[in-house]
Amino acid sequence: MPVAVDQWVEQIRRSDVRALSRAITAIENGEPEAEAILQRIFPYTGQAYLIGVTGAPGTGKSSLVDRLAAHYRRQKQSVGILAVDPTSPFTGGAILGDRIRMQGHASDPGTFIRSMATRGFLGGLARATADAALVLDAAGKQVILIETVGVGQDEVEIARLADCTLVVLVPGLGDDIQNMKAGLMEIGDIFVLNKSDREGADRFEQQLRAMLELAPARDGWRPTVVRTVATEDRGTAELAEAIAHYRAHVEQSGRRRAMKIERWKQRLLDLLQARLLERLVGDHRSAQTLAALAEQVAERKKDPYTAVEEILAQADLR
Amino acid sequence: MPVAVDQWVEQIRRSDVRALSRAITAIENGEPEAEAILQRIFPYTGQAYLIGVTGAPGTGKSSLVDRLAAHYRRQKQSVGILAVDPTSPFTGGAILGDRIRMQGHASDPGTFIRSMATRGFLGGLARATADAALVLDAAGKQVILIETVGVGQDEVEIARLADCTLVVLVPGLGDDIQNMKAGLMEIGDIFVLNKSDREGADRFEQQLRAMLELAPARDGWRPTVVRTVATEDRGTAELAEAIAHYRAHVEQSGRRRAMKIERWKQRLLDLLQARLLERLVGDHRSAQTLAALAEQVAERKKDPYTAVEEILAQADLR
Repeated sequence: MPVAVDQWVEQIRRSDVRALSRAITAIENGEPEAEAILQRIFPYTGQAYLIGVTGAPGTGKSSLVDRLAAHYRRQKQSVGILAVDPTSPFTGGAILGDRIRMQGHASDPGTFIRSMATRGFLGGLARATADAALVLDAAGKQVILIETVGVGQDEVEIARLADCTLVVLVPGLGDDIQNMKAGLMEIGDIFVLNKSDREGADRFEQQLRAMLELAPARDGWRPTVVRTVATEDRGTAELAEAIAHYRAHVEQSGRRRAMKIERWKQRLLDLLQARLLERLVGDHRSAQTLAALAEQVAERKKDPYTAVEEILAQADLR
Repeated sequence: MPVAVDQWVEQIRRSDVRALSRAITAIENGEPEAEAILQRIFPYTGQAYLIGVTGAPGTGKSSLVDRLAAHYRRQKQSVGILAVDPTSPFTGGAILGDRIRMQGHASDPGTFIRSMATRGFLGGLARATADAALVLDAAGKQVILIETVGVGQDEVEIARLADCTLVVLVPGLGDDIQNMKAGLMEIGDIFVLNKSDREGADRFEQQLRAMLELAPARDGWRPTVVRTVATEDRGTAELAEAIAHYRAHVEQSGRRRAMKIERWKQRLLDLLQARLLERLVGDHRSAQTLAALAEQVAERKKDPYTAVEEILAQADLR
C-alpha cells in the first residue's frame, strides 16, 4: 500500500491528529506499516527538543508536564507529550487518569498528548517511545515532553532518548536522599523539587545539592536544582529557563553532535538486537533448535554456553 | 589456568565463602574465568529453590528477607541471599546499609549474603544475578533469596529467574493500589503486605484482593496475600507456608518442567543477544561501520533501518 503510506506520511507532516495517533498505535503494535512510515518520515526529523521527565509515582510529574506544556504553548511553540504508562491492563487506573488530564489540552490543536502503554516489556517500550517521538518530530512539534512513571531501566533508556532529562523529587515521600535510586541521580540534567512548599523541603534541597556536588560534572555540566509547586504553577518559568540554560550549554560546548551520534549508535545497536532476535525466533528451524536446546539445558545435559554456540553455528542471520 | 579453575570449582562446591565471593565478583566484572567456572559448575545446579523478593524502596524488603532466611535456617536449610542493589556509586547508601544488615548472619556459615551492584545497566545486572544464583546453587544452597530494589524491567527479569516471586507492598506508602506498577501486579505469585500493623492496612488488603480477583489465574494459581510485620517477625511462618504451598502447587500441576524449559529458552535468548552484541562491537571493522553509520543517521543522511541492514550484511557473527 505505497499510496496509503504516502498519504499517511503527508498527514503526519501536517500534524493531523488522527494520522499521528494511528501511526503511534501502529508502532506500539509492531504493525508492518510502522516501519515504512518511520523510514519515510525520518529525513524530516531531528528538529524537536526532547525533554524527559521522570520520577517515582506520586511526585506530580503529570502536573509538571502540563504546566511546562502550557508554558511552551504561551511561547507559541508546538508541543507533543508522550506519557509512558506502565499501568496494568487489569487496573487501567493511570491511563484513565491520563485521559482525564488530557481534557485540559484537548481544545488546543498545538498540543498532542498520547499515553504509551507497556507492552511486552523486553525493551520494546523504550523503542516504541523513541519511534513515537520521531513521529511527533516529523509533525513539526518543537518541544516533546516524555513522561515516565517507571523507576529503573526505563529511565535510563529515556535519558538516552531525551536531549534534557528532568528528575522530579518530592520532599518526604518516604524516600530519603540516601535511598534514592542510583539511576535517577545519574541521568538527571536538572532536578525538580516539586511540592516544594511541603515541610522538610529546605533540608531535602540541601541534601540533594550536597550530593550533587559530590558527583563528577558531565561534559562540564553540574545538574541544577529547581523548586516548583506544579499544582499552583509556581516555578514553571524558572524550570523552563533552567532547561534553556542547559540547552545553550550543550550547544556552546560543541558536544551536541557527538552526543547525538553516540545516542544513535546505541539506538542502532538496540535495533540490531531486535532484528537478530526476530530472525532467530522467526525462523522455524532456529526456533526448533532453541526449544530443543532449552530442554537439554533445563535437564543439565548441556550447559548454556555450549548451547548458544550451537545456535550461532546453525543460524543464518543475514 | 585449568588447575586453578578446578580448585576454584571444588571450593565453590564446598561452599567456601571466599571462593563464592570471588566467583560472583568475576561474574560481575565479566572476567574471562567467570564463564569457565559457570560452565564447570553447571551440571551441579538446578537443585536450589529461588525466591524473588521485590517492591518499592521503603517497603521493608531487606528485613523480610532476613526473617525468611532465619526461618529457613531454623529448618536446617542452607540459604543464599543476593541483594540486587542499584545504588549510586557516589552515594553508597544502600550498600552500606546492606553491609550493616549482614552482621546479623555474619556468624552463621549456613547463610551466604552478597550485594550485587548495578553495573552497565543494559540487562547485565539480571544476567549477573542469574549467574550468581547458579554459583550458590552449585554450592548446595537450598533456598536462594533474591532481593531487588528496582521497580521496573529488573523485576520482570527476576520474576523470570525465580521459582516464586514475592511482591512486597506497604499500606499508605503514597502509592495507591491504582498507581501500582503493572509489572508488579503481574509477576507476583504471593503478595506480602508488610508493615501491616499500619493504619489503612485492612482497606489496602481489601483493594488488593479485589484487584487480584480480576486478574486471570496463571496455570491455575491465583496469587495469595500474606500480612507481615517483618520488624517484629510477625507473619514469617505464614509467609514460608504460602511459599511452600505455591511450590507444591507448581509441582503437582506438572507445570514445573515446562516452566523451567520456558525460562531457559529466555535465558538462552538473552545470552545469545549478548554474544551477538559482543561480536558486533568487539570486531574492529564492525565497530567502525557502526560508528560511521550512526554519524550518517544522526545527520539524517540515512535512516536507521537501512543502516541496520547494512551492518547485518557486513558482519560475520559466527
